[in-house]
Amino acid sequence: MTTTTDIRLCRTFQTAPAAVPTANTAKYLVSGLDADGFEAPDWLVPDLEDGTAPDMKAEGLENVLERVPKHEFPGEIWPRVEWSYVDETARERGRHQIDRLVSELGDEIDGVVVPKVGRLEDVERAAAVVAEAEGTHGYDDGAIGLSVIVESARARSDLREIARFGENSRLAALVFGPVDYTAELGGRDMGDGRPRWDGLLEALSNEASAAGLLAIGGPFDDLFTERAGVTSYNATEYADQVERETRLGLDGSWSLHPKQTIQANTIHMPTPTELERDVERIERFAEARREGTGAVAIDGQMVDEATAKGFRNTVRTVRTIHRTRPDQTDAHYDERLLNRALDLELRSDGRAGEKTV
Amino acid sequence: MTTTTDIRLCRTFQTAPAAVPTANTAKYLVSGLDADGFEAPDWLVPDLEDGTAPDMKAEGLENVLERVPKHEFPGEIWPRVEWSYVDETARERGRHQIDRLVSELGDEIDGVVVPKVGRLEDVERAAAVVAEAEGTHGYDDGAIGLSVIVESARARSDLREIARFGENSRLAALVFGPVDYTAELGGRDMGDGRPRWDGLLEALSNEASAAGLLAIGGPFDDLFTERAGVTSYNATEYADQVERETRLGLDGSWSLHPKQTIQANTIHMPTPTELERDVERIERFAEARREGTGAVAIDGQMVDEATAKGFRNTVRTVRTIHRTRPDQTDAHYDERLLNRALDLELRSDGRAGEKTV
Amino acid sequence: MTTTTDIRLCRTFQTAPAAVPTANTAKYLVSGLDADGFEAPDWLVPDLEDGTAPDMKAEGLENVLERVPKHEFPGEIWPRVEWSYVDETARERGRHQIDRLVSELGDEIDGVVVPKVGRLEDVERAAAVVAEAEGTHGYDDGAIGLSVIVESARARSDLREIARFGENSRLAALVFGPVDYTAELGGRDMGDGRPRWDGLLEALSNEASAAGLLAIGGPFDDLFTERAGVTSYNATEYADQVERETRLGLDGSWSLHPKQTIQANTIHMPTPTELERDVERIERFAEARREGTGAVAIDGQMVDEATAKGFRNTVRTVRTIHRTRPDQTDAHYDERLLNRALDLELRSDGRAGEKTV
Repeated sequence: MTTTTDIRLCRTFQTAPAAVPTANTAKYLVSGLDADGFEAPDWLVPDLEDGTAPDMKAEGLENVLERVPKHEFPGEIWPRVEWSYVDETARERGRHQIDRLVSELGDEIDGVVVPKVGRLEDVERAAAVVAEAEGTHGYDDGAIGLSVIVESARARSDLREIARFGENSRLAALVFGPVDYTAELGGRDMGDGRPRWDGLLEALSNEASAAGLLAIGGPFDDLFTERAGVTSYNATEYADQVERETRLGLDGSWSLHPKQTIQANTIHMPTPTELERDVERIERFAEARREGTGAVAIDGQMVDEATAKGFRNTVRTVRTIHRTRPDQTDAHYDERLLNRALDLELRSDGRAGEKTV
Repeated sequence: MTTTTDIRLCRTFQTAPAAVPTANTAKYLVSGLDADGFEAPDWLVPDLEDGTAPDMKAEGLENVLERVPKHEFPGEIWPRVEWSYVDETARERGRHQIDRLVSELGDEIDGVVVPKVGRLEDVERAAAVVAEAEGTHGYDDGAIGLSVIVESARARSDLREIARFGENSRLAALVFGPVDYTAELGGRDMGDGRPRWDGLLEALSNEASAAGLLAIGGPFDDLFTERAGVTSYNATEYADQVERETRLGLDGSWSLHPKQTIQANTIHMPTPTELERDVERIERFAEARREGTGAVAIDGQMVDEATAKGFRNTVRTVRTIHRTRPDQTDAHYDERLLNRALDLELRSDGRAGEKTV
Repeated sequence: MTTTTDIRLCRTFQTAPAAVPTANTAKYLVSGLDADGFEAPDWLVPDLEDGTAPDMKAEGLENVLERVPKHEFPGEIWPRVEWSYVDETARERGRHQIDRLVSELGDEIDGVVVPKVGRLEDVERAAAVVAEAEGTHGYDDGAIGLSVIVESARARSDLREIARFGENSRLAALVFGPVDYTAELGGRDMGDGRPRWDGLLEALSNEASAAGLLAIGGPFDDLFTERAGVTSYNATEYADQVERETRLGLDGSWSLHPKQTIQANTIHMPTPTELERDVERIERFAEARREGTGAVAIDGQMVDEATAKGFRNTVRTVRTIHRTRPDQTDAHYDERLLNRALDLELRSDGRAGEKTV
């Protein structure tokens, strides 16, 4: 590979209930930790919040503390704890969960996911709780990351300020939470699903990029449809949502199920056609530049330095995935094309317009 | 009813010219005050601003002062006065109108609607005028509310700050004014209507929820279409607009006509199907929680604490309407379903994610 | 003409490479300067940035300095210089280019276009560079304008603050740069083009209007399509983009080609049908007002003072174009209609809701 990059990969943010009322209460947690191929998420999020029932939460925490160290999960681990900007007791439970997680699992987790944050002050309060646990248990400042779920009107209102706080803090990702968000705004499903909140998604992508954070889409919870006695997986609707998110520059999508993980991993990778097209255009643009042209028509499109940045993003993304999940790139691209992408000379001077994060 | 709520109802914000050049100049005002059934708006807005011609305004004010006390209007009364962030003389007329309204009608009105506000400072200036009238005429601080019409680029630019000012002030509602707004931005109707300003509506819904205010959509003024000699009411286009607004969580819609009021009242009520579906899901989710599950699939949808909040909003809205307009809920729902919704046990601990306002 | 207005016209923002590797390196610059009829842009932007290759930039600057004074261009001249919020050396080149342009061409240019600005501080830094050149070479404060290209996540994040800075500064226009912007956010073309960034365009239109600035759309670079051996100009897709921009109240569109200039000039003029309709409605509304009505139904639409402002914008725009490009208005409207629009009595008291800029 000619250049290295520091793109942080989170194509998939897969939550798994930390405990469910079955014989093996850690069933979904373990299957997330063991997933391989395209079913393996970039981030696994053991869920101590809404995915685990109130009277299973204590057992859920023990499951996470016990199981995570036993598996060699190749991606990142980000437990979701309890929190709420309006509920002091939820914050107390979250503080306790964070303390236990950092104390006993500080070397295994990449950070914690804090839901239902409010305005900037509440995000700062959550960051302080993580900092306190870090200090108490002897970790370096910033060792434990923080991701927040933007699912209150207040967090949306303060999104720019929250992201700017993230420029110089442990904040790593802004994740959308459409279900709570829609309920809080009083939005309604009139039979055609929840509102898409396009303006929020555009702002999430922008503010995350401006501050060097990841932006992650929200869950799609209509997993299955029953029709005339047969239940089937809603593959098309979820893929449509993930495609909308990737178009807008979101870095990854939320997954509730291994099939969703396959789809989100796939869609957040450049297609072979895209990769071939952009490798081709980078080569042709480089040639035009050597001949003294600033802008050149390639297949009818005017290509200049600005356009070329998009092409280079395609190649950089493939390189990052290849470094961490070579089985996925090997399966997705033919060998000749992949090698061409890996060998291509890219400028990597961190100029404006390169995809940040 | 098991729980009470403090949802403030404004499904319909119906303006009525305070004076028109007919034999009975108060004709539209009186028909608004007398409307019943689904034609009765939640808020009646006697209009001293653009709906009343300049040389009828004095008479319009007398009409409001004289007629309002003579009718038992079951909803709220919010006269719209003159104002403009760029026109000192309009503000002087508004100040005079507010003073007369508070002085002579302070016990009858819920507040005043101030149009054409500019940046935050202008909204604060309008609030100070109301406070002054209140003090002069012996009303308690905050007795007279303020709603503003967001219809200038400056008010849109300061929307977040204006809403935050509303967190601790007499400000009650943010109302969109698309006609002035589109003219000020230079937006054009290219034959398919005015722009929809989706981004603004999303922000209006968000900022209102974040600050505990109502968000109300703008008027639809293509009331009638003439085709081959026959003039007909544009029922579909108006309903489409109101449905878009309710999806985004706006609390109510602007009405210019009793037919629009029927439609907006109806659309801002949950449909019988929605109500039945959500009552059903609340019951099934409560059962799953008792069995120790945090998330359960109901009709193919993953339902957890977050999803359930949306269901509870449906029930709460019905209860609020039933309290103030029992004739409407009795007509809209069958008795068995309505009683089931009224008897259902809801948590009402004001947690995050419950619809605010 | 009954009234005068101070609408600043920029229906078309046409960039032309300052130097290309052909026998006559100033070829495109000269053809922009010489364009007439509907091919003549309102603003010509000689491009020293991405449109000119790195090793042609010095020659490009000489071309601009030498050629611009030799042509009587009837619109405005705004060279685009190099700049980048992340690249100090690009800013140094920009500073040098600005100094030369002001020094040798200060009477010929209306301002400079600065690309790739970041947060407010970076825009202030660019403004200071222009101020310094102005002072050094003896021009009055504010004589040389500044337009910036909004094409970074940081500039979008600070858009409101940047526009407010423009209220009392040399800042004249906010121009969208979708190619760099999409690359920086990591947005992807999934085969159906770049994202449209509707939220950004709405905000650009709003903030520009709130601060009295021009808002200009971004380039459309899929100029031509090849199909079965024939290359044709993408007239429909570009026109669709320009129509979307004009609906949202953007003042002008970016052009990369004389054919695009024809289309953008045309679309940003009211159509003859629009002009006739709005002249008619102004006359009928004036008549209704004389009879004491504040709102009147015209062709089924409720028209009041607010609605009438949009009609007056139509007439004002035509008058402004007629003053600067009479050949275009003479060609576009029949003489009788044009004279009716020019003779109509309009209030022009700068009230709220009139199109600003």
